[in-house]
Amino acid sequence: MAAFPFQVTATDGAARTGLLSTPRGEIRTPAFMPVGTAGTVKALTVDQVAETGADIILGNTYHLMLRPTAERVARLGGLHKFMRWEKPILTDSGGFQVMSLGKISKVSEEAVTFQSHIDGSRHALSPERSMQIQADLLGADIVMQLDELVGLPTTEARAAEAMRRSARWAERCKAAFGQRDTQDLFGIQQGGQSEALRRESAERLIEIGFDGYAVGGLAVGEGHAGMVEVLDYAPAMLPADRPRYLMGVGKPLDIVEAAARGIDMFDCVLPTRSGRHGQAWTWEGAINLKNARFAEDESPLDASIPVAASSAYSKAYLHHLVKADEILGQVLLSWHNLAFFQALMAEIRAAIAEGRLAALRRRVAAGAAAASDSAA
Amino acid sequence: MAAFPFQVTATDGAARTGLLSTPRGEIRTPAFMPVGTAGTVKALTVDQVAETGADIILGNTYHLMLRPTAERVARLGGLHKFMRWEKPILTDSGGFQVMSLGKISKVSEEAVTFQSHIDGSRHALSPERSMQIQADLLGADIVMQLDELVGLPTTEARAAEAMRRSARWAERCKAAFGQRDTQDLFGIQQGGQSEALRRESAERLIEIGFDGYAVGGLAVGEGHAGMVEVLDYAPAMLPADRPRYLMGVGKPLDIVEAAARGIDMFDCVLPTRSGRHGQAWTWEGAINLKNARFAEDESPLDASIPVAASSAYSKAYLHHLVKADEILGQVLLSWHNLAFFQALMAEIRAAIAEGRLAALRRRVAAGAAAASDSAA
Repeated sequence: MAAFPFQVTATDGAARTGLLSTPRGEIRTPAFMPVGTAGTVKALTVDQVAETGADIILGNTYHLMLRPTAERVARLGGLHKFMRWEKPILTDSGGFQVMSLGKISKVSEEAVTFQSHIDGSRHALSPERSMQIQADLLGADIVMQLDELVGLPTTEARAAEAMRRSARWAERCKAAFGQRDTQDLFGIQQGGQSEALRRESAERLIEIGFDGYAVGGLAVGEGHAGMVEVLDYAPAMLPADRPRYLMGVGKPLDIVEAAARGIDMFDCVLPTRSGRHGQAWTWEGAINLKNARFAEDESPLDASIPVAASSAYSKAYLHHLVKADEILGQVLLSWHNLAFFQALMAEIRAAIAEGRLAALRRRVAAGAAAASDSAA
Repeated sequence: MAAFPFQVTATDGAARTGLLSTPRGEIRTPAFMPVGTAGTVKALTVDQVAETGADIILGNTYHLMLRPTAERVARLGGLHKFMRWEKPILTDSGGFQVMSLGKISKVSEEAVTFQSHIDGSRHALSPERSMQIQADLLGADIVMQLDELVGLPTTEARAAEAMRRSARWAERCKAAFGQRDTQDLFGIQQGGQSEALRRESAERLIEIGFDGYAVGGLAVGEGHAGMVEVLDYAPAMLPADRPRYLMGVGKPLDIVEAAARGIDMFDCVLPTRSGRHGQAWTWEGAINLKNARFAEDESPLDASIPVAASSAYSKAYLHHLVKADEILGQVLLSWHNLAFFQALMAEIRAAIAEGRLAALRRRVAAGAAAASDSAA
């Protein structure tokens, strides 16, 4: 019976590092999950993704249920086989994209009904349907409950309503998921910026009982300070012996500050999206390769990262590719960015193990400040 | 003193297979050169290109002289270092793209003056400038003379005029190129569809003396039959002991028929361009992955080709990527197509060595016919 074994091997304050062991491989935590939206981590082969050191990737239920459809993925042997990724996959519930990309027809207690952003076709996503798609059809290793999100600005009353509906959906997800030998189900804490609502949400989820717990409803526009404020109390409300996952986060500074507050897992489109727009993430912050100062810069993006995109190609060449709008520029910068994020996670894990996370937080903060200086 | 050693190891009729040995590596002939237009074989890393079995790639003088400029490439250590391709590079003269992409201001005996298609800036390309760019600044292993092309339809008088100007430019290129230890210079036969002009062109080039000889002015709209008609006599006019290069060709059927007539080298954007548009080349001709018949086809494009794009990903997955307009679809199909073209060349070389080229020609012709049937 899952839950997957989760072993915390070292702590540094609230931060912890460890191993989540799944039948498809071990996930070193804190872990960053590249986002493979529509069955592909955008612009990269799975071998390139694996070379960055990723232990797990994320797949999007919303995109896959619309195209090629979850039923087709199932007929083709499941998501791992379809996209040739043999290590673990976590799928989201579809809820977030339904609300951000789909055209919502109705949100009821039973389900969300919406129109596809691709072809306008009508679909419904209920807790039970989300479980069927993620667990049975796509075959994810880690399945997320369906939750209801509220955008910002919102009211405490609206946040409470969505949190309580999410808790009721959590219960239905748990019932539909049932008992499985090789798959885990994570609940999602909601409650917006309210400590009381976050506590109520955590208590309800713990009562139902999940294999892991996500902090949801952040990275929706509250800003770094607003996020950190919630992370000062929210992760500690979730069981210490199970993985905690901060959804949709984030920039290196967000990640290191969240890890310092006890978060174990992250996902974000930032590295690949930035890469497709000419931006590279480094220890000195994000740089724009289109900038003329790189035109004859023969240094690589990061000589210490073994993937070719980071250490073998020059900034001058990347500058040329970005200026010429070459696909290879998007490929190499996406690849480097994912490799940099994995290097960041490896450094966070090492810092926690060696009790020097505070110094790493200062280093990442300095990089973020340098980047915003050079952008100004 | 170059010319590079060229050893013909077997013949089958007019066809020959052999080795052209350059300081940067051996080129197995007949050879197909992927086109790396603007310092990148579009959408692919150089490691992916190398994995297809390519011994040499082509770089475009026109694109590189405009962006990032040949002088910048030189300051960055030359084209090989700039783009991380350590094996041989052949550069074209720039003449073809000046005429097809640039806005011509004037073609005089001295030079072609034109405006950049990128930013409208004015440039001149003379035989001497082309040699400087290719040999000194980009550092190509094989340098092409500047020639003058005429589009179709044309007249014999116009074809004669362009051929004779090309011959005079050949002489100036040879003088400007001088004597070099590690670089070869190829002349280009012109003369359109006229056997007499082709003979005059060949005689003039041989008198000047080149390290290799290209058949130019084909693949400009004359069609397969028109091309084969010229190839029935043109290659035989060029020295048998030096490589013969058919520029800008082509489809598998064009290639095998040209090889049968004594051509040793080819280049074409077709595999990468087709790949970016959802098309895959196979022994059964070109197929369009967007076609619904591939939606649940679990077979790979070609299980016998070792690169992942050919043998590891399913057609169903490629269909999904193309439908979803994912960059990875363009990457994988470009990669497969280049690998298929290299497999085709390997098969042509083996067939020549084993005296069975006639059977291979029938096989490729059947594939081309099957594809045009299924397209109809």
